[in-house]
Amino acid sequence: MPQRPPLPPAFLGALETLLGPRLSTSPAVCAHHGRDESIFAAMPPDAVVHARTQDEVVAIVRLCRDHGVPLVPYGAGSSLEGHTLATQGGLTLNLQQMDRVIAIHPEDQTATVQPGVTRKALNAELRDTGLFFPIDPGADATIGGMCATRASGTNAVRYGTMRENVLNLTVVTADGEVVRTGQRARKSAAGYDLTRLFVGSEGTLGVVVEATVRLYPLPESVMAAVCAFPDIGAAVQVVVQTIQLGVPIARCEFVDATAIRALNGYSRTGLPEQPHLFFEFHGSEAGVKEQVAIVQALAQDGGGAQFQWASSPEERTRLWEARHNVYFAALQLRPGCRSVVTDVCVPISRLAECVGQTAQDLQQSGMLGPIVGHVGDGNFHVQMLVDAADHQEVEQAEALNARLVRRALAMEGTCTGEHGVGLHKQGFLLDELGASSVALMRQIKHAMDPHNLMNPGKVFAF
Amino acid sequence: MPQRPPLPPAFLGALETLLGPRLSTSPAVCAHHGRDESIFAAMPPDAVVHARTQDEVVAIVRLCRDHGVPLVPYGAGSSLEGHTLATQGGLTLNLQQMDRVIAIHPEDQTATVQPGVTRKALNAELRDTGLFFPIDPGADATIGGMCATRASGTNAVRYGTMRENVLNLTVVTADGEVVRTGQRARKSAAGYDLTRLFVGSEGTLGVVVEATVRLYPLPESVMAAVCAFPDIGAAVQVVVQTIQLGVPIARCEFVDATAIRALNGYSRTGLPEQPHLFFEFHGSEAGVKEQVAIVQALAQDGGGAQFQWASSPEERTRLWEARHNVYFAALQLRPGCRSVVTDVCVPISRLAECVGQTAQDLQQSGMLGPIVGHVGDGNFHVQMLVDAADHQEVEQAEALNARLVRRALAMEGTCTGEHGVGLHKQGFLLDELGASSVALMRQIKHAMDPHNLMNPGKVFAF
Repeated sequence: MPQRPPLPPAFLGALETLLGPRLSTSPAVCAHHGRDESIFAAMPPDAVVHARTQDEVVAIVRLCRDHGVPLVPYGAGSSLEGHTLATQGGLTLNLQQMDRVIAIHPEDQTATVQPGVTRKALNAELRDTGLFFPIDPGADATIGGMCATRASGTNAVRYGTMRENVLNLTVVTADGEVVRTGQRARKSAAGYDLTRLFVGSEGTLGVVVEATVRLYPLPESVMAAVCAFPDIGAAVQVVVQTIQLGVPIARCEFVDATAIRALNGYSRTGLPEQPHLFFEFHGSEAGVKEQVAIVQALAQDGGGAQFQWASSPEERTRLWEARHNVYFAALQLRPGCRSVVTDVCVPISRLAECVGQTAQDLQQSGMLGPIVGHVGDGNFHVQMLVDAADHQEVEQAEALNARLVRRALAMEGTCTGEHGVGLHKQGFLLDELGASSVALMRQIKHAMDPHNLMNPGKVFAF
Repeated sequence: MPQRPPLPPAFLGALETLLGPRLSTSPAVCAHHGRDESIFAAMPPDAVVHARTQDEVVAIVRLCRDHGVPLVPYGAGSSLEGHTLATQGGLTLNLQQMDRVIAIHPEDQTATVQPGVTRKALNAELRDTGLFFPIDPGADATIGGMCATRASGTNAVRYGTMRENVLNLTVVTADGEVVRTGQRARKSAAGYDLTRLFVGSEGTLGVVVEATVRLYPLPESVMAAVCAFPDIGAAVQVVVQTIQLGVPIARCEFVDATAIRALNGYSRTGLPEQPHLFFEFHGSEAGVKEQVAIVQALAQDGGGAQFQWASSPEERTRLWEARHNVYFAALQLRPGCRSVVTDVCVPISRLAECVGQTAQDLQQSGMLGPIVGHVGDGNFHVQMLVDAADHQEVEQAEALNARLVRRALAMEGTCTGEHGVGLHKQGFLLDELGASSVALMRQIKHAMDPHNLMNPGKVFAF
């Protein structure tokens, strides 16, 4: 790594005056903030601050601007794509202490939160309202981080992603201005869609300090089941038919045999080591029954086994917790390994073909890599378990990912359904959208952050 | 109006070489393109061209750039906010001849169209697929224009607006580059959300030359009904309760007594001159029955009359055509008049209060102004019928609109739910989002269109 100049003493002095012990330059704290769940080598910042208020964020951003110091916003640190790595050192702004639920409007089905509130914390706050917040990436990510990466999860097939579920944001931009992107009405045609500009911008355009999100009524009836299939193709085909019939299924997850083995080991799920679909149905009692009847018939025609029902709410929770833990469960299949996780998303008509060819490629490569996916959206992940120190192995994994992305792009798909670009997919982004689209993104970045201080090095080269 | 220099002869010559008779400088053609449905005085361009291909659009945009000529993209001309008026003269680019449906992917529920395809033409093409495109502004607008204004309509409460239903766009930007904003997958986290940046940008950032939109399966069962209420408050309260209960109603429209009078005159609907709700329910047979049972009970408790059912598909079509024609029907209430149409949208919890106070204000003003609305979204319109030549009357209408917007903003609502800002709501936009947000929009505009040639004068002052 090239030598960097140290942070200016006047900058650190001003931060210390502002934040006292919430400024740290300790190597341990910096190291902790210098890695995430990606395969990338650690890139620690030179200092870390914890903010508690919007005013503090404004002051911090202005100090960074005045002193030319790069700033990396930081939530739960659960990125898979290197989003929180301090590529140029500088300051990491940890927002976990901005964890207040500011307002819940049950009658409007909205919640306004600070960025450090996690998805689980929000749902805990909602417990008595009859409402829930559906977006559920694997990790217990912060709402701020989920805005930044345009996160999604198992419920997206029915409830949409962060793109559809953020009503407005308050953002501190690179020049230290506070921008409010919208009101609390369900729809608006008032000017450029600044909300959507920030959702998915990966911290490169500003720091989210407040978000208003949509909530949904807890369904009157919920049923969950798992179903084993003889092979991957049969399972995926059932999903494709379910979506094409317009069944309003709430969750529809594919888990391959290797991933089942990982779950059985980690969460004692005791499932046969075969490809599975995990289903959840939301609706009125009659509505759920109708959905179940259709999907059961499709599964049976497709060679699926009997549905195994999660009979109680506790069992249902256990099932989905197991599904959410698949990432960590898979890591246990090879102690000490790291993951290279793919994230393509294709039109549903191409899904069976894409998953099938990828499984074949994986098998031929001899690598260990569970396949799971939010297949109702056309999105699936191969989690290749690699020895991060073994360059050849890492290269092999990256080569498989590159072949997978090429395959997905040829099918009019995207290189990333929900994890974002980060450090990892910048070449793929160019392949996917072309030079003129990335040039336009860069134009916007240059206009909004001319000195490249906001999470530099992410999404594209400045 | 200040004298403008004429269009450069070299510019006109190049256009003529490119387009032959599809270039016109005839005063009649220019006048036709110089007005829309708004109250604004006509502002004709100096010339009009009809493009047929993306390559032609690129050539036209580059000629405008090279010669510094303002360009106004033009679809069906049905804007209510002055979007297509040539504030600085220049060239109007009519896209109505780019009216080809490029591809329909029934299995993925997407359609890719040229910008001049209208919503009705698209649905006619879809007739045999079992799918439909739900977004339905009052006019038979073009898909390109609907992208530009982030249009919505009666189905948005269930299916969302253009924001949720455009998968990707191809846009020719001010520098003549072709930008493709996304692939055809249902979701993506690949870089900045350029799709949403262009949706709602009102032609100020580029010309849409292709759009891929989401389609939906025609529901197995559809039922439609109208229900009369003793007063406005009672009707709106039923809508609020319907939404808060999470009933997945497809359409839920408020039509006040004056609007009913207009409909009866124009479409022979024969309804009692009272406030009404128009409902439509989509789903399985059992699902629709459930929805109907809930809403009927709410209506009955709220003092509503018996539901009048549209018993046949033809009658249902007639009902919704009448609803879509309410704008033109209302114009007939006062021959020769023009409309000043309001468009606020508020959180559903404030809707009854907002509509109630507005109806009172309208009554006190003595103006004739039917109230209709997509009230399931919290969005409603007062269509004030004014003599455009009577300045005092126009001022009175604008003053009522200003009071209404103030009321809506105080309720965390927006000045425009679906019509856009155009020339009309630039001050309201500033009131709604604040100077820093509008400054950011302007920053983006300056970066992408530094010479202010793309639909200049709309959304905000350059």
